[in-house]
Amino acid sequence: MIKKMLIANRGEIAVRIIRVCREMEIETVAVYSVADKEALHTQLADEAVCIGGASSEDSYLNMESIISAAVTHGADAIHPGFGFLSENPQFAKLCKQCNITYIGPDYTVIEKMGNKVAARQTMINAKIPVVPGTNNEIKDLNHALQEAEKTGYPVIVKAASGGGGKGIRVAYNKDELKSGFLAACKESMASFGDDTMYMEKFIENPRHIEFQILADNYGNVIHLGERDCSIQRHHQKILEEAPSVVLSENQRKEMGKMAVRAAKAAGYKNAGTVEFLLDKTGKYYFMEMNTRIQVEHPITESITGIDIVKEQILIAQGEKLKLKQNDIKLTGHAIECRINAEIPEKNFMPSPGTIVALHFPGGNGIRTDSAAFSGYTVPPYYDSMLAKLIVHGKDRNEAIKKMKSALGEVVIEGVHTNIDYAYDIINNKDYISGNFDINFLEHFNWNKG
Amino acid sequence: MIKKMLIANRGEIAVRIIRVCREMEIETVAVYSVADKEALHTQLADEAVCIGGASSEDSYLNMESIISAAVTHGADAIHPGFGFLSENPQFAKLCKQCNITYIGPDYTVIEKMGNKVAARQTMINAKIPVVPGTNNEIKDLNHALQEAEKTGYPVIVKAASGGGGKGIRVAYNKDELKSGFLAACKESMASFGDDTMYMEKFIENPRHIEFQILADNYGNVIHLGERDCSIQRHHQKILEEAPSVVLSENQRKEMGKMAVRAAKAAGYKNAGTVEFLLDKTGKYYFMEMNTRIQVEHPITESITGIDIVKEQILIAQGEKLKLKQNDIKLTGHAIECRINAEIPEKNFMPSPGTIVALHFPGGNGIRTDSAAFSGYTVPPYYDSMLAKLIVHGKDRNEAIKKMKSALGEVVIEGVHTNIDYAYDIINNKDYISGNFDINFLEHFNWNKG
Repeated sequence: MIKKMLIANRGEIAVRIIRVCREMEIETVAVYSVADKEALHTQLADEAVCIGGASSEDSYLNMESIISAAVTHGADAIHPGFGFLSENPQFAKLCKQCNITYIGPDYTVIEKMGNKVAARQTMINAKIPVVPGTNNEIKDLNHALQEAEKTGYPVIVKAASGGGGKGIRVAYNKDELKSGFLAACKESMASFGDDTMYMEKFIENPRHIEFQILADNYGNVIHLGERDCSIQRHHQKILEEAPSVVLSENQRKEMGKMAVRAAKAAGYKNAGTVEFLLDKTGKYYFMEMNTRIQVEHPITESITGIDIVKEQILIAQGEKLKLKQNDIKLTGHAIECRINAEIPEKNFMPSPGTIVALHFPGGNGIRTDSAAFSGYTVPPYYDSMLAKLIVHGKDRNEAIKKMKSALGEVVIEGVHTNIDYAYDIINNKDYISGNFDINFLEHFNWNKG
Repeated sequence: MIKKMLIANRGEIAVRIIRVCREMEIETVAVYSVADKEALHTQLADEAVCIGGASSEDSYLNMESIISAAVTHGADAIHPGFGFLSENPQFAKLCKQCNITYIGPDYTVIEKMGNKVAARQTMINAKIPVVPGTNNEIKDLNHALQEAEKTGYPVIVKAASGGGGKGIRVAYNKDELKSGFLAACKESMASFGDDTMYMEKFIENPRHIEFQILADNYGNVIHLGERDCSIQRHHQKILEEAPSVVLSENQRKEMGKMAVRAAKAAGYKNAGTVEFLLDKTGKYYFMEMNTRIQVEHPITESITGIDIVKEQILIAQGEKLKLKQNDIKLTGHAIECRINAEIPEKNFMPSPGTIVALHFPGGNGIRTDSAAFSGYTVPPYYDSMLAKLIVHGKDRNEAIKKMKSALGEVVIEGVHTNIDYAYDIINNKDYISGNFDINFLEHFNWNKG
């Protein structure tokens, strides 16, 4: 049984974890940077330890400092939250070496799932659909043309050493591939000094569908249904919902089964997420596995009634999953909206500062997870997320109306936020009709009036 | 279809109603006294009308002023909330006469259920168990002794004109009745100038169990399970929970059926509550019917997933109940705690003043219904309830731990509150074991340290 938990994080997720520990009668140790001395997580925990300077490198990414705080304060477990060290196998390994229970999977699994090629190979071996493509490098243009014939157009060629969108070309036919492949090689060589390429089928306008997994230490693995996280801006999720409006009950069953199989293939333990791309024809492809709690976990909690963070802790202390797959019933519809301190008009530039007035909505079917309070100063050093507003309605229509009403009620003065932007998304007719994919926000005309 | 709702109330219930109207896309008109110009309900509604001076008589009880606000602002419906005019048949009648939809039952039903003798007679006719007793006045001591033999001891004699605990005696046997009856007569004559008495069986240490009812205009009546509201201080509910820890599934079914029968016997429409006393042997007795929404309705919403205020509005605009009794499933356990601005150490004296810091807990399974905000001045004129904290757990044990954690997180500075008092209740071992009745708080030793 875990007696004292150190929370290696800050912000709302640290508060979320502290709350569940209080409920479970587990003592809590917060860690904080000098910038977070007055933060809510620092105030709420039973003990709080300053672990370094304001920059993440000096504090929330500072493994030695965090482990040392855990040891000196007698914490027998560490919850990494999300971001920061939550997918760092070294950190999980260090916890193990110090006999501290890490709330997450084994470090070897974090490592394997963190490596895209290894993860892909694991899934191929387990017969999980992955995006069709070459598992090896493309040697030359002829090789590329051959592979494209096998895969079928459109294809995307990518620099193996790539990043930041360089050395990437999409080709819808032979001619496009001919010119695109050579251009990509050139660009890759110029950018990375290497023109090793690989190729995948290009999935057009897919949706991002992810399945929440729970896996105990005894081989029991279940899924808690899916989340649709297609509303993203530059790969940053803004609005998530569960269940997805496009999945049929049969698809849910099949993809859920695949997600469970993926977790088993990875030797996964604890809570995790299997992310898929779903194309317009209903085909789905394994994208990656997130080996930690996710920002958007509350929408799954809303529709299943299961406390995922509590389950994480129970699993980590060696308890068997009490729930079987058949016990999981999805009730109603939930939407989460991330409220960030940022200026949409200025390309979503972060907006740190002091909150001088704050009001979150309450009432039926409304949940707010936040570490903000009136008088709180949002520091400039970390992620700009201020709050998560989660609504739960009996159906999607009710949830949308609830979110609309809830967003309209939020008052945050002193910093800029994306509330008006989110309000426009939730009022958009394509969003409301469920007609969207991961490119939705790229084309979204935000009505600035 | 209702287009514009006037909310004839203030505080959290006014906010609750405004929120559901926003969700239903019904425009809202708030009414406010001069003391509530800056109140949350005044700010949140689409329109707001000052209806008079600070005292309730001049504003929230001022029927003419409220009806006139509704007419001049084009409201086609009025929601009375609870308290104030919510059980005043005159007000409901006035609405009807002005062609304004009243969110509640017909005024004739409010009138009938408001009269204890008429309500009792209605239930007797419908074969609903009522507390055994005389339906007529007791003529003299001999008559009292005869009736007591029929009823069985203990009995309680009550002054028909009584109030404030005067002219009441409990008798466990003949001798006690002889002395008690005469003393009660004397006291009643001295206090009220009338010594008409009646007598009931005295129910020892009962629990307060109430059933939530929904009834449409087409004869469909269902119940949403019970609430246990036994934790009361001087008949003021403090902590409520659903379901009750003492009801078996069979008792729930039977009492639920009786509650539905009671509503049908009363010709009830809209949401209402049938209150019972439940004695230690499992016998139950109709106490009264509340013809309005109740403070503690959210715990029923938590375990059923049904928005009761929304159902009220749907019923009032003529919609049929979509739910059948078999659709109602109770999931998990919910507890509500009323947070009042009061000083427990000074006999719960109200504590008006300005709130200078405010923090309510959020997160999984936590709901707050409140009209308070940082900077809000609690006026001295009205009920002292500041907020309702509602938790929903998978079972009673989890709900209790959640409430404990949630109460521990609340910060309200600037006014005194009953939070420490409530915290001690939720930590009391008799409360935790479920071993309590309506006298619990009378014997409760609040640990002032």
